[in-house]
Amino acid sequence: MEEREIYAAAVEIVRRNRGKLEVKAKVGAANREELSVVYTPGVAEPTRRVRDDHALQFQYTNRSTNLAIVTDGSAVLGLGNIGPEAAMVVMEGKGVMLKEFAGADPVPLCLSTQDTETIIATVKAIEPSFGFIFLEDISAPRCFEIVDRLSRELSIPVFHDDQEGTAVALCAAIKNMLRLTGDRLGDKRIVVNGAGAAGLATAKLIREMGGHDIVLCDKVGVLTGSTPGLDPYRAAFAAQTDSRGATTLTEALRGADILIGLSVARVVTQDMVRGMRPGAAAFCLANPDPEILPPDAKAAGARFTASGRFDYPNTINNLHAFPGIVRGTMEAGARQVTLGMKLAAVDAIAGYVPDAALADDFLMPEALDPALALHVADRVAAAARSEGVARGGKDA
Amino acid sequence: MEEREIYAAAVEIVRRNRGKLEVKAKVGAANREELSVVYTPGVAEPTRRVRDDHALQFQYTNRSTNLAIVTDGSAVLGLGNIGPEAAMVVMEGKGVMLKEFAGADPVPLCLSTQDTETIIATVKAIEPSFGFIFLEDISAPRCFEIVDRLSRELSIPVFHDDQEGTAVALCAAIKNMLRLTGDRLGDKRIVVNGAGAAGLATAKLIREMGGHDIVLCDKVGVLTGSTPGLDPYRAAFAAQTDSRGATTLTEALRGADILIGLSVARVVTQDMVRGMRPGAAAFCLANPDPEILPPDAKAAGARFTASGRFDYPNTINNLHAFPGIVRGTMEAGARQVTLGMKLAAVDAIAGYVPDAALADDFLMPEALDPALALHVADRVAAAARSEGVARGGKDA
Repeated sequence: MEEREIYAAAVEIVRRNRGKLEVKAKVGAANREELSVVYTPGVAEPTRRVRDDHALQFQYTNRSTNLAIVTDGSAVLGLGNIGPEAAMVVMEGKGVMLKEFAGADPVPLCLSTQDTETIIATVKAIEPSFGFIFLEDISAPRCFEIVDRLSRELSIPVFHDDQEGTAVALCAAIKNMLRLTGDRLGDKRIVVNGAGAAGLATAKLIREMGGHDIVLCDKVGVLTGSTPGLDPYRAAFAAQTDSRGATTLTEALRGADILIGLSVARVVTQDMVRGMRPGAAAFCLANPDPEILPPDAKAAGARFTASGRFDYPNTINNLHAFPGIVRGTMEAGARQVTLGMKLAAVDAIAGYVPDAALADDFLMPEALDPALALHVADRVAAAARSEGVARGGKDA
Repeated sequence: MEEREIYAAAVEIVRRNRGKLEVKAKVGAANREELSVVYTPGVAEPTRRVRDDHALQFQYTNRSTNLAIVTDGSAVLGLGNIGPEAAMVVMEGKGVMLKEFAGADPVPLCLSTQDTETIIATVKAIEPSFGFIFLEDISAPRCFEIVDRLSRELSIPVFHDDQEGTAVALCAAIKNMLRLTGDRLGDKRIVVNGAGAAGLATAKLIREMGGHDIVLCDKVGVLTGSTPGLDPYRAAFAAQTDSRGATTLTEALRGADILIGLSVARVVTQDMVRGMRPGAAAFCLANPDPEILPPDAKAAGARFTASGRFDYPNTINNLHAFPGIVRGTMEAGARQVTLGMKLAAVDAIAGYVPDAALADDFLMPEALDPALALHVADRVAAAARSEGVARGGKDA
């Protein structure tokens, strides 16, 4: 389909269906006998049991798979700060993925506030109904504090897909590239362009995987420990990087091995790519228009290219990561998504591409393969159990 | 089934199904083409349209039927202040009714707070995802302020079933009793025992229907303008009642025509009923054990009896009221549930019993008749439209 047709179909499908999600009853209540079991007076008995043992709530209600998609509509797709009403259209779309691929029961909660403290207080207030908090499209730097605080203050997992989902998917692509070349991540000079939610999280996860020569760029240029006006999160990371005197993206890319683009359309030129080292990688995920189109990057000498798009090779999409992470976390009854679980997801996604298939233009598995999420979920759940973050006595 | 069997079945049904509600996708996303329409890049187009016209959210998302069942677990069934985890079992049961009978998409939001301001702030924060706020099992007097404030501060309907659903159902029974006897409500002396959420709301609605000789009793006895320690809501109502010197329930019932019981089990004796006027009504809704069992009240001289139970004649249940009210309000796209809409619901429920069927022991329609909710919804929606509270340009 052409873009125009896709847009028309996208409007038609939501208009016809009045959105994309609905709530269904898993049990009937059509007659007095059913009513007496499903509601009054029968409901009193399981209710008393949960009152006496809160852990039973995960068995007697839908909580274990209830997932709140929480957004304030401040950083939606490529559309920016569009507010909660419009964001709901996107959240329902994301909800469809979370249902189909992760087995979650997604509830969009599009908030009327963009105040950090109010968002945190709201999520804390609704916690008892949910098994998972899935944060989406909340702008940086507020999202950093919101994730930090909620992760510490809630007893259910908190996951910010724009940060962690993107970081995991990108790191899987990097891992498979290194698997192909036999190189070590520690020997690579990496430039992350775009220091938003995804950029900072990706830079951090790369470091956790052993990358230490990382330069962070934003629209103002290279970020360092002395860049004025940075929030504490970016400042802390930038202070640990070595810019080697580069102040612009062009300078930073000179001699770099890996470009991670998480910024905006068309900010990387072929000349910039030409300045990179032989065998360079340009993974450019600006959506829908990447920083540089894969064919242009290849023509300028990049060996590896990737984008968020499905119409070029090496699609890198959150869809590689979040379904398996969510499913595995829920299956283990984990209280949080730990670094170990994220690294397990990176390994699982990368490892899903068999040796025989691995190639410059086949670094990533098919994102829509439903078995991928199951595979990732198994590894994530195993990591949760081995790290001891799984809720005890979960299954009846 | 016996009580023991019902309880066993009630535990088994939630354990087997892991609760009673789930979220489903209304559209598929199994391949790239579907994904491009349901999510990226297609979703950008309906999203942009809603950004430019927020009213379209009600057409392009599930918002128009998304209903938040909000509770803090402070006054659940006969169980009291059991907290949000256990309350969720009850809310899912209520959700099944709201799905089956009202056509809503119910989302239980069981809150971790019982602070009035935090509850109000939380509901305000999640407003943009919902078309209806259904408050449930929040204890008085906090529920009075919460309903008041939210009704004024939100642009979607707010309904507290324990107050308004009960009041509407009870008033329908009163209306049909008067239809049978030909008496006027204004000539009746009415005692409302139990000045909680339901009691005060019922007393108020009776007054709106033309009853003016009302006495409000609580566990301390008759409430008057000089009763110390009353919250502003109860105090304001009590100040407008005439106790005629009665200080106890027994004294208040002497010479009364109608007893409305919304208190606790077995607090009304046969002697008390014997003190009422000939042709008296004892509508005793304490759940599951009424203030006096209908046969005992009859034996003591009451002509009309009713309870919340399905095993005696004249069942009065919120289920008579809330499905039609919710459905009609949503169908009209009303911004609030007005007094006029509630009175329309009273009329519709009462009028659903045909003249030929109306009898001392047949004052109410069958609560589980699915056509009842549709009938009530039609009248409620019509009232909303005639009152001008319907959202404009709702349907595509």
